[in-house]
Amino acid sequence: MYSSKYLELLIDELVKLPSIGQKSAQRLALHLLKVPREDALRLAEAIRAVRERVGFCATCGNFSEGDPCGICRDPQRDGSIVCVVEQPGDVLALERTGMFRGRYHVLGGALSPLEGTSPEQLRIRELLERLRAPGADGAGEVREIILATNPNVNGEATALYLSRLIGPLGLRVTRIARGVPMGSDLEYSDLVTLSRALEGRREVE
Amino acid sequence: MYSSKYLELLIDELVKLPSIGQKSAQRLALHLLKVPREDALRLAEAIRAVRERVGFCATCGNFSEGDPCGICRDPQRDGSIVCVVEQPGDVLALERTGMFRGRYHVLGGALSPLEGTSPEQLRIRELLERLRAPGADGAGEVREIILATNPNVNGEATALYLSRLIGPLGLRVTRIARGVPMGSDLEYSDLVTLSRALEGRREVE
Repeated sequence: MYSSKYLELLIDELVKLPSIGQKSAQRLALHLLKVPREDALRLAEAIRAVRERVGFCATCGNFSEGDPCGICRDPQRDGSIVCVVEQPGDVLALERTGMFRGRYHVLGGALSPLEGTSPEQLRIRELLERLRAPGADGAGEVREIILATNPNVNGEATALYLSRLIGPLGLRVTRIARGVPMGSDLEYSDLVTLSRALEGRREVE
Repeated sequence: MYSSKYLELLIDELVKLPSIGQKSAQRLALHLLKVPREDALRLAEAIRAVRERVGFCATCGNFSEGDPCGICRDPQRDGSIVCVVEQPGDVLALERTGMFRGRYHVLGGALSPLEGTSPEQLRIRELLERLRAPGADGAGEVREIILATNPNVNGEATALYLSRLIGPLGLRVTRIARGVPMGSDLEYSDLVTLSRALEGRREVE
């Protein structure tokens, strides 16, 4: 082979990233070789900085530059409502709506028999501790849990599992609405989504 | 915003990579935050190492850990045949076939009026110098140029441009065959490919 061992090493690392295959990794590596040196080094430095400066909040499990994170620390956020999500990316998505003023709990995934993800691998124990120790984060007792796991097989199973687990604690447990997405076309909606949309219908106000 | 400035910086850098959009960049950044610290730092280090150890060969324009590169330096390679390609990735692809024992010339792109790529931005001057200075790379006179630019609008235009430029020098100028790809289905081949396949038909041996 006439290739470069350093280039091969970079391709090997890039291929480990999610949804980057061998061809994409090669294209990315050659791109990083071609761009101005400073641009490539800026990416390397950004990766290093993220791992040096960003950690996770011990309360909610979201990434954070401090512990507790900005949301868990913010007295303006309503500590009596906790929205349970699978991943930190879900927190970013919900925050962008600007509609939620409560706090979060990041599970770190969803239950999946196929992928072998069991309850012990998610931050479920931490969630229960959080619910049983009212005011531990200086936020008062939790009164509502919003289950905002993904509307797919694993996410639904996780929501069901959590609702059975939390139900006996006497909290209000809700699930985000599943239905036809805004801007979509009924004609092209799948059966399950349409069924959920019918099931979840509400009085017109 | 409750996000992290370091995470935002990383997303900004990732989004500059080819075919990585805002959503992919965010997913990649969160992935790099979640994997073991050593894995993330290994990627950062691989990027840095590539930029420190890998440069370009002044003769053929391919990336290389030395100058001239392994192929231009190898006395076993036939210096009388030069295969002209657009990108270093094309050299890797052709090398994988194991069918070509000549040398390469990497243009660094293709002519494109739309993207504003003109002949001066490609390594065409270097190609002509290489053809006019026989034996300069210790390889003897070039007798054949294989035009292996991509079989798309820009690549075809570049091949045509080069064939007119090089034709007067009295070399053999060839173009790689365009036709139906192996393993494909005639029924689903596009018109241009099928036309090329008919045009380029050869006697069955």
